[in-house]
Amino acid sequence: MKLSSKNLEVALNKTYDVIVAGGGAGGLSAAIYLARYGLSCLVVEKGKGRSFWMQDLRNYLGLAPTTPGRDLLQQGLEHALSLGVDYLRGFVEEARDEGDLFAVKVKVGKANSLYPIFHSKYLIAATGIIDHLPQLPDMQNVYDYAGYSLHVCLICDGYEMRDQKAVLIVNSESQINTAFVLNWFTPYISVLTHGLCSVGPAMREKLAEHGYPLYEAPIRRFCGENHQLSGVELEDGTHIEATTGLVAMGSRYHNAYLKGIPDLNWQGENLLTDEWCRTSHPRLFALGDLKQGLNQVSIAVADGTLAATAIWREIRRAAPPRKWVERLGSPA
Amino acid sequence: MKLSSKNLEVALNKTYDVIVAGGGAGGLSAAIYLARYGLSCLVVEKGKGRSFWMQDLRNYLGLAPTTPGRDLLQQGLEHALSLGVDYLRGFVEEARDEGDLFAVKVKVGKANSLYPIFHSKYLIAATGIIDHLPQLPDMQNVYDYAGYSLHVCLICDGYEMRDQKAVLIVNSESQINTAFVLNWFTPYISVLTHGLCSVGPAMREKLAEHGYPLYEAPIRRFCGENHQLSGVELEDGTHIEATTGLVAMGSRYHNAYLKGIPDLNWQGENLLTDEWCRTSHPRLFALGDLKQGLNQVSIAVADGTLAATAIWREIRRAAPPRKWVERLGSPA
Repeated sequence: MKLSSKNLEVALNKTYDVIVAGGGAGGLSAAIYLARYGLSCLVVEKGKGRSFWMQDLRNYLGLAPTTPGRDLLQQGLEHALSLGVDYLRGFVEEARDEGDLFAVKVKVGKANSLYPIFHSKYLIAATGIIDHLPQLPDMQNVYDYAGYSLHVCLICDGYEMRDQKAVLIVNSESQINTAFVLNWFTPYISVLTHGLCSVGPAMREKLAEHGYPLYEAPIRRFCGENHQLSGVELEDGTHIEATTGLVAMGSRYHNAYLKGIPDLNWQGENLLTDEWCRTSHPRLFALGDLKQGLNQVSIAVADGTLAATAIWREIRRAAPPRKWVERLGSPA
Repeated sequence: MKLSSKNLEVALNKTYDVIVAGGGAGGLSAAIYLARYGLSCLVVEKGKGRSFWMQDLRNYLGLAPTTPGRDLLQQGLEHALSLGVDYLRGFVEEARDEGDLFAVKVKVGKANSLYPIFHSKYLIAATGIIDHLPQLPDMQNVYDYAGYSLHVCLICDGYEMRDQKAVLIVNSESQINTAFVLNWFTPYISVLTHGLCSVGPAMREKLAEHGYPLYEAPIRRFCGENHQLSGVELEDGTHIEATTGLVAMGSRYHNAYLKGIPDLNWQGENLLTDEWCRTSHPRLFALGDLKQGLNQVSIAVADGTLAATAIWREIRRAAPPRKWVERLGSPA
């Protein structure tokens, strides 16, 4: 059932088996499995996550390669709702472990916000990441190309960039190393720092050895039309010809609500998990981009399967067996 | 490109980066990723695998829960072919490790069969399993219900069986334990051995304690209409009322072609793999139902992602870097 500020009561008086923080590919897959295991769950989704921005989901089995990420999410949401999953648009502010239960505080509504607290036995953290994009005074100019011909994922979109002139946009010297993976797909790489970092002599030499020019002035604007990049103009007036680009500026991790849970195993901003996506906290699971591993829709979907199944097994094994009561005592 | 007995030559003179044995969910996902990494691959598919028989794929994110498995496979095949994957209908008879390459012998065509041998650097084993079904003189009577109201996977279809009268059909005493998992979904379980195994006193007592009757006569026929089960008739004339059923008779593993490869780590008929689906042989990967783990479409699809990515990383790292040649020597 879709929840909103108007009908929260029913959810406040309930202990869910699982709260799923994040309604992207991983969270929705988990919700579908949980519901089919007969477990109750609440999905809290802030909206506009990483898969929402994918213009074409080019490598997910079963969907045409022109399917936008938002279609996957919409289909998954309908699927989950048809199975009785509760779904709330909101932002998870804090998860607190209260012993047997998690208390999850959610911000609902941008104006006159409510801050309800929901309770569950298990928590699935599937809030993912969002890629940093170069900040320009006119962000619409960035959005006109990002997800179309300006990519953020080499694994997803290296194929789309093959043998084209490409800009690689970084915000640290170490991210420049992405050039030496991107060159599997294309050797025509111009590296742009957008004025955000300095570059040492060893890296300069390595770039020169590969023939990859380095541009250190800030970007003024992306050029092209109909989402198709034709080049990049820098603040110093330089124009760089490029029909595609890769942004390698790192990501923001949506994990602040977990920082109060003690003794979690972090690797940087990623959670470390076992083969069932279980964190070091026995009732907390992490999926998809939030956990260590490949940031791919297919991986997140499988992670949802794994976490839901592990939780079901545990709840089922702790439950009393269901007997065929009217048969008991009669000869079998 | 679709290959057949008429155009095999082109493939025989080639060394593929990867041969994918099995064109189910795992194999097609691997092929799509491999092609997008710019690697060459040949998928060999015998047809009519486990996912082909799924009437409804009820738990795969992005597809409506009424999507048949064959639609997923058809979409995946079109997707792979559009990326330049080679695809051959045939049966993998033998895989031999020749040092740097695998030699993979395929039977093509049922009559006047050809036995071409293809070569690749890597081999992905994605040939899966097929569930044993009860054998009746009239197998059409079994096929009328199998995949509709007579299920083979508790994780996929327990939800469809909830609180219904169910038959559990087994071929060994240990499979009877499935009843004590199935009872999470329904307690109205009749256990049928189809005359295939004997049952000891401890198991009889446990079944009686749960109120689950045990029927040991062979099945004569499944009753119902339009794929909807209404009951099962036994050879001794007993009629058992049931609107659903679960077949737990184990599976046949399509892995004979791998048995000549030395030192693989088997657990029963499953291959043990690392977190990238790599077996103990460094150039052999195993996906989906063939490897240890959950037998779910979502898992197989992610396995394809992982294996293809691991192979790409290895091939890429061993390749010479691509330089922007016309830039070399000019000031960066």
